[in-house]
Amino acid sequence: MDNYENLLNTYKKSTILESIGEALQWDQEVMMPEGALPIRSQQSSTLAALKHDILTSDEMSVLLVSLEDEDLNSDQSANVREIKRNFTRAKKIPNELVRELSETTIQGVESWKIARQSNDFKIFLPSLRNVFALSTKVAECIDPNTHPYEVLLESYEQDMSVEEIQRHLNTIKEHFVPLIARIKDQEIDNSLLTNDIDVKKQIDFNRFIAKAIGYDFSKGRLDVSEHPFTACYGRITTRYNTGWWSAISGTIHEAGHGMYEHHLPLKSFGLPLGQYCSMSIHESQSRFWENNIGKSKPFWRKFFPNLSNSYGLDVDLEKFYKIINKVEPNLIRIEADELTYSLHIILRFEIELGLIEGTIKFEELPEVWNQKFKEYLGIVPPTDSLGVLQDIHWSWGNIGYFPTYTLGSMIAAQLFAAAEDAIPHLANNIEQGNFENLRSWLNDNIWCHGKRYLTKELIRKATGKDPAPDDYVDYLKTKYSEIYAL
Amino acid sequence: MDNYENLLNTYKKSTILESIGEALQWDQEVMMPEGALPIRSQQSSTLAALKHDILTSDEMSVLLVSLEDEDLNSDQSANVREIKRNFTRAKKIPNELVRELSETTIQGVESWKIARQSNDFKIFLPSLRNVFALSTKVAECIDPNTHPYEVLLESYEQDMSVEEIQRHLNTIKEHFVPLIARIKDQEIDNSLLTNDIDVKKQIDFNRFIAKAIGYDFSKGRLDVSEHPFTACYGRITTRYNTGWWSAISGTIHEAGHGMYEHHLPLKSFGLPLGQYCSMSIHESQSRFWENNIGKSKPFWRKFFPNLSNSYGLDVDLEKFYKIINKVEPNLIRIEADELTYSLHIILRFEIELGLIEGTIKFEELPEVWNQKFKEYLGIVPPTDSLGVLQDIHWSWGNIGYFPTYTLGSMIAAQLFAAAEDAIPHLANNIEQGNFENLRSWLNDNIWCHGKRYLTKELIRKATGKDPAPDDYVDYLKTKYSEIYAL
Repeated sequence: MDNYENLLNTYKKSTILESIGEALQWDQEVMMPEGALPIRSQQSSTLAALKHDILTSDEMSVLLVSLEDEDLNSDQSANVREIKRNFTRAKKIPNELVRELSETTIQGVESWKIARQSNDFKIFLPSLRNVFALSTKVAECIDPNTHPYEVLLESYEQDMSVEEIQRHLNTIKEHFVPLIARIKDQEIDNSLLTNDIDVKKQIDFNRFIAKAIGYDFSKGRLDVSEHPFTACYGRITTRYNTGWWSAISGTIHEAGHGMYEHHLPLKSFGLPLGQYCSMSIHESQSRFWENNIGKSKPFWRKFFPNLSNSYGLDVDLEKFYKIINKVEPNLIRIEADELTYSLHIILRFEIELGLIEGTIKFEELPEVWNQKFKEYLGIVPPTDSLGVLQDIHWSWGNIGYFPTYTLGSMIAAQLFAAAEDAIPHLANNIEQGNFENLRSWLNDNIWCHGKRYLTKELIRKATGKDPAPDDYVDYLKTKYSEIYAL
Repeated sequence: MDNYENLLNTYKKSTILESIGEALQWDQEVMMPEGALPIRSQQSSTLAALKHDILTSDEMSVLLVSLEDEDLNSDQSANVREIKRNFTRAKKIPNELVRELSETTIQGVESWKIARQSNDFKIFLPSLRNVFALSTKVAECIDPNTHPYEVLLESYEQDMSVEEIQRHLNTIKEHFVPLIARIKDQEIDNSLLTNDIDVKKQIDFNRFIAKAIGYDFSKGRLDVSEHPFTACYGRITTRYNTGWWSAISGTIHEAGHGMYEHHLPLKSFGLPLGQYCSMSIHESQSRFWENNIGKSKPFWRKFFPNLSNSYGLDVDLEKFYKIINKVEPNLIRIEADELTYSLHIILRFEIELGLIEGTIKFEELPEVWNQKFKEYLGIVPPTDSLGVLQDIHWSWGNIGYFPTYTLGSMIAAQLFAAAEDAIPHLANNIEQGNFENLRSWLNDNIWCHGKRYLTKELIRKATGKDPAPDDYVDYLKTKYSEIYAL
């Protein structure tokens, strides 16, 4: 099995370079002064090109061919299957294009930041145009016979087609839109969320709550960035300039990602068996903790006294629970309630498709955004910073990523339903701030498997059925029927 | 000239990987939680091995040969000279050894940290032994016919031999030891230095003073680490747990390094013309600002009111100037006064030689350290943390580095004397906190040249003579004769 070991060692070099790229990206978002960009940009593009060189080397090709007739066990087969897939995709993208895309996204992040801060879409426009053009080129190199968006989506979720995703999104829309309509008239006073809380206090509470659910600070960190994210072996960020609740739910969301990263099998670091299954699964982990746990009553039964005490909140638990679950069109995706959230995703899904197909013009994007926003959510963003410029994803080149959020929410609900069946007294555990059984269930069913199974098989094994919106719809219907006494 | 361009591009990949390694090292020292070490360790060793692969590739060899008969201009010659030197040295070190040394130093830094924190030399002992054994192996691979210490020294200063350095150190010792003896009886009360100053205030002042001398926060940062250092495009650190003055002089020292890094020609980033000349020159820049500027009266004439006000210091400028220049044996090298400093270096120089030659046993190092300390400085460290464990250098594998500090001080004094001749009213400028002329002189004479010239030629061009201890001895004799009215 020398060839197998050699394949793993060579492949691992490429994924370790990728993990270093992530460390640089974390640094760029969280620590790096802007004037270091010319250096960072060369570092990141050199890494991306080298990673690509190694992944697509003749050595890899020879080793993969040599293993075609080998008798592999299931672990080995899973590793080879994913390595081969990545090799095959990467092999089709010219080095020059890889380099160009990497440089463009580095510049893209910076110009997005400045554009967002100065509420000037035009600053971001050239980068955005480039990112989409280069990404479309990449898709066409990988598979010229398939719709480029389908190909881009496969970077984040290889196990579900655009058609399938569209079907799930439609089901969700069909159930949620009438539900939202029934809720619209209701009134919950959530002005509490605009309370001005000392940032030092907030940092303490956010660290406390991340630790409480099991986020491991001996491996990771909690910092501040323009947009919350998880990278560099599960380091997480949040932000304190969009309200104290937004900070908390951001922290819990990212801690979900972080715990997944920290529990991937370390012995397979850099290999498929040590990597996350798919972005849908990754997002299911963050949204599981953010929503199914972090917006639940049992959870706050445990932690609300602490929060209320520290932040000086003048409400009771019942009121607080309603406030954090209030259904209300929000300008910002990551602050949306669970029901309207999917409308934010559908909007982005349509825009990405439109930009790639040319039916939406880049320079018209702010208007298109605002128009669609009005149509789906009934409000218009007063500024582009609060509208089309709110997300970092496009500047990172992550096109086709957004749908995985709703898939993640959907899968999270399905996992939570299965966990409720599997773990006796789960609600009780949560009420006591005891997440050990839950983490252990997630570890056994999701975290420990790495990329052994694709999304559907992983979820079938964990829940007994294919990923589908049923549990998600049930969960939110029940939850909101109770909150709004429907 | 395609071959020349290809050579630069290939070489640059290796130096960019090196710069990424520095970014990871900065992160490890300043930001990384300990539990991420297993990942970081794999990242760093992968980078080091890849860097080595590229630098020693057949491609490099072929390109270098192809340029042997080319007519190169002086810029090109300088680049090729240094690239060839690095290629030739690296080519002789087996990949496996590179990987091993890199992994050992990663572990070394962590075990040094723990050993230092828990004052337990035994924790660091295995790593220390490994680092020296592997470094000696490296030296023997590079040149089996030369004393390994000479070969290791060349990593930091290729332009001066051990014999030359020994000669300079002896001259310095001959002048300083009697001077120190004459001072010994004098008494300056420096208990002020143990004043407890609020760390937030200190951070503000340290940022202020770094900025005042010209350190560019748009490119770099000032953070806290166990041991002050500069890395990752001129980011600097200091520490606040060893006294407020130690923090300030650490900051000014590192800001000197940082300004050098920030002013190396960006267009030649990753190429010899964009790299620092030698560690002696790098240290000359840090010690120039730390000592010749940052411990001078004109400097504090400008900044003392501010400092005194912020820190609530109950002394006048004259007293303060004497306190920060008090000659007194200090346990800690980086807190030593300018006169006793070189004794710290001579001690380390002898120990490094002894460890490599086997005349000093690793397990006896704490005793040897303390014994020599007693002999040279008349005091004995009460703990190993304040003794043999105080410096990070050995854990990093930087053996042969220490002498460059005294060479740096020596060169700094020579540069300062030349700057005084070249810049009208330099003392006046300093008194006004105006360092523009000085920075511009340093830029024109040192910073802008990168590695165009070796140390001696660079210093000859800047000062009209070879690096020598004369100006250094004069400077300190004059300074201390005045302070102690000798």
